[in-house]
Amino acid sequence: MAKSLHLTAFMRPVSLHTGAWRYPGAYADANFNFQHLKSFAQKLEAAKFDAFFMADHLAVLNMSVEALKRSHTVTSFEPFTLLSALAGVTEKIGLAATASTTYDEPYHIARRFASLDHISGGRAAWNIVTTSNPDAARNFGHDEHAEHGERYKRAREFYDVVTGLWDSFADDAFIRDQESGIFFDPEKMHVLNHKGDELSVRGPLNIARPVQGWPVIVQAGQSEPGRQLAAETAEVVFCAPRDIAGAKTLYADIKGRMAAAGRDRDHLKILPAAFIVLGETVEEAKAKRAQLDSLVHYDSAIASLSIALGHDASGFDPDGPLPETPETNASKSGRAQLLKLAEEEKLTVRQLAQRYGGYSGLAFVGTPKTVADEMEAWLAQEAADGFTVVFPFLPQGLDDVTQKLVPELQGRGLFRRDYEGATLREHFGLPRPANRFFS
Amino acid sequence: MAKSLHLTAFMRPVSLHTGAWRYPGAYADANFNFQHLKSFAQKLEAAKFDAFFMADHLAVLNMSVEALKRSHTVTSFEPFTLLSALAGVTEKIGLAATASTTYDEPYHIARRFASLDHISGGRAAWNIVTTSNPDAARNFGHDEHAEHGERYKRAREFYDVVTGLWDSFADDAFIRDQESGIFFDPEKMHVLNHKGDELSVRGPLNIARPVQGWPVIVQAGQSEPGRQLAAETAEVVFCAPRDIAGAKTLYADIKGRMAAAGRDRDHLKILPAAFIVLGETVEEAKAKRAQLDSLVHYDSAIASLSIALGHDASGFDPDGPLPETPETNASKSGRAQLLKLAEEEKLTVRQLAQRYGGYSGLAFVGTPKTVADEMEAWLAQEAADGFTVVFPFLPQGLDDVTQKLVPELQGRGLFRRDYEGATLREHFGLPRPANRFFS
Ligand SMILES: Cc1cc2nc3c(=O)[nH]c(=O)nc-3n(C[C@H](O)[C@H](O)[C@H](O)COP(=O)(O)O)c2cc1C
Ligand SMILES: Cc1cc2nc3c(=O)[nH]c(=O)nc-3n(C[C@H](O)[C@H](O)[C@H](O)COP(=O)(O)O)c2cc1C
Repeated sequence: MAKSLHLTAFMRPVSLHTGAWRYPGAYADANFNFQHLKSFAQKLEAAKFDAFFMADHLAVLNMSVEALKRSHTVTSFEPFTLLSALAGVTEKIGLAATASTTYDEPYHIARRFASLDHISGGRAAWNIVTTSNPDAARNFGHDEHAEHGERYKRAREFYDVVTGLWDSFADDAFIRDQESGIFFDPEKMHVLNHKGDELSVRGPLNIARPVQGWPVIVQAGQSEPGRQLAAETAEVVFCAPRDIAGAKTLYADIKGRMAAAGRDRDHLKILPAAFIVLGETVEEAKAKRAQLDSLVHYDSAIASLSIALGHDASGFDPDGPLPETPETNASKSGRAQLLKLAEEEKLTVRQLAQRYGGYSGLAFVGTPKTVADEMEAWLAQEAADGFTVVFPFLPQGLDDVTQKLVPELQGRGLFRRDYEGATLREHFGLPRPANRFFS
Repeated sequence: MAKSLHLTAFMRPVSLHTGAWRYPGAYADANFNFQHLKSFAQKLEAAKFDAFFMADHLAVLNMSVEALKRSHTVTSFEPFTLLSALAGVTEKIGLAATASTTYDEPYHIARRFASLDHISGGRAAWNIVTTSNPDAARNFGHDEHAEHGERYKRAREFYDVVTGLWDSFADDAFIRDQESGIFFDPEKMHVLNHKGDELSVRGPLNIARPVQGWPVIVQAGQSEPGRQLAAETAEVVFCAPRDIAGAKTLYADIKGRMAAAGRDRDHLKILPAAFIVLGETVEEAKAKRAQLDSLVHYDSAIASLSIALGHDASGFDPDGPLPETPETNASKSGRAQLLKLAEEEKLTVRQLAQRYGGYSGLAFVGTPKTVADEMEAWLAQEAADGFTVVFPFLPQGLDDVTQKLVPELQGRGLFRRDYEGATLREHFGLPRPANRFFS
């Protein structure tokens, strides 16, 4: 294969679409039923996905009670526990977890990812986030969130500490010679003694160097410091561009920053989130999406639409077309996108609100062939190295991707037919990092 | 069964004996090989053990480099990741993890145990420790450990917060009505809003109430505040009495404190740690232990002996009897115990040092019958409600217990022949706690 796609599955929530759990045939409890999650992971592995990605939030998501009580996101598993349980029942698929640098400690994070990497035989990845939800602060003893730049400053140093702790032992430190009684060579243990602006951590870690050297580093921040952190540290970037033009700009920006930081641009894979709805025909796929959107509660949907338009939409005729509204200062580009969408697809106010309130990000809706065409174009045009797949509803939406789209991509030589290596680094084609303290 | 024993397995390190990994046939990497740990958990489950216990330490154990390089404790898995992985490959056995209240956050601890409890179908237990190793402080940004009483004060409040977070949702909060679109009843969600001396945590937890209501609470602190915390909060106590007399005193003390705190004494199980070596004859068992002790490195052993005697023992003839030494202020009772042991078993200096440096705690060494006799006596005399079994070496020492001792106990009606319930609370005969916010 010349150039091919990488695919990760966005699995927390199992569907980002707010109506997903109500779709006919959907598992209403999919976010929170281990047997379901186990079957999803095994199906994704059978389809040779690079990784299963477990996002994370350190508070109940901040929304109105009216929206919250309809949200399937309110309860789900904690990532380390879930991914470790899945490690025991899968063999090859990568296991990526979000962990916050703002509300956790580097010694804990280093240990848990190292442990997951050992348990899974080298399949762990860490999505570094600085946590944007201010409600998290109040669950961790703070009245207020630290400021954005401050959070990224800590994240950068946190990364240095965690990777330094992973390097506590040389890869060959553990001799375990039963005859002589020497368990490990103390010359091959390094005490970090980190003392920085934000963190002070002695080390060593009480765990052998991870199978992958370091678990794969993922980053999903979209701001200026987020992109810079990615360029300096990340090996995978999750992002949420709206369209191919936006994606190309982001792609060029991050790969350009990498070059400036002296890194090889192939050592970072950019995977935009893509919501995928498949049908036998494009019309059928669109109809599925319309049906799914219709399950979004109107009151919550209209509230989201009002915010996006910068204008109260609650008085509009739900079944009429979108009336003219004055442009406001708030969110110009979002508003323009909505007007275009309403116009192009001839949506009523209700349909537009439900579309927007259901899932407002990048979507590929069509047949396996048309979606594969789009993905191929994104790859060819350097808009993406692959995708973070968001499912519309489960299990059916996941089965459609694994059973119909993946074979189409495989047939085109755009996706692996089998895993070629054992570790997640090998799936992504990433080098194993050297130990900075031992050669 | 009238009164019967509870058995948990001490699994981190898989053997506390420092020579264990060198014993003929022992897995040298048993602490850190997932396949081995999986097989141990499955064997313990087949033998109907109540729980698999994963102790934890937040630093490399503090010992001299000479001792450290011979220690199989230096690398092992992190408990949440290991126990979650084991949850996926076992069905009934309880999964107990140590987590520190000094160096972690109640929101994280509450989530991880709740998640493990859901993933395992109600098998999680939390061993609350305040962390005694001062080296841990330096891995978490502190120069010094907080003072002992201060750590216990935080632990008590931490327990209130964690259990309060577990009660964030009523057991029946999640309706998931696909028809109406209501996922949960917001009247059945409670915002904790805890503001105390040590902690401030808003809540609610972003996870449904655990299967067990609360995971089982374990405590292993032996000091005055440790016992008091146990009496107020714990449902299981791990302890390390030296002999049956000491155990009876501790047992009476903790159960007495419970009565004073208004709790039912049956709602707490006291499980002393017991090192078990089995043979076809008592002599064979003793010979196995002597062989195991002989694998302890002499230099480390003599250093431990010197400390225990309060006198430098490095100049003694290793193969002679223990010479007379003056009594010092340090550790009177430890010294007396050593002199008694040397005398009774006619041990040379080397043998005494290796015995002491190998494993110095309570040991049952004999045939399945003699060990079952001892256990029966402890149970009858209210010295214990069961034991936390420490294996001498693995896999053989574990196989001896599960295949020889357990059937002997079962034959006497002292141990279950099958699990009677599904959750760890049911194995222990503990009630499911009511939700303090919802009846
Ligand atoms: C695909 C994707 C996945 C994300 N996953 C998480 C997550 O699991 N937890 C989280 O707190 N934030 C998550 N984020 C949010 C980002 O970490 C980041 O906060 C956001 O993109 C805003 O960027 P900034 O932090 O640089 O301002 C995700 C973003 C994207 C695009
Ligand atoms: C069987 C047993 C298991 C223990 N497990 C742990 C552990 O996993 N982690 C830890 O830091 N301490 C552990 N301890 C130590 C106790 O938590 C406690 O620190 C010690 O008994 C001293 O008591 P104190 O803290 O009340 O002074 C254990 C103790 C016993 C007896």
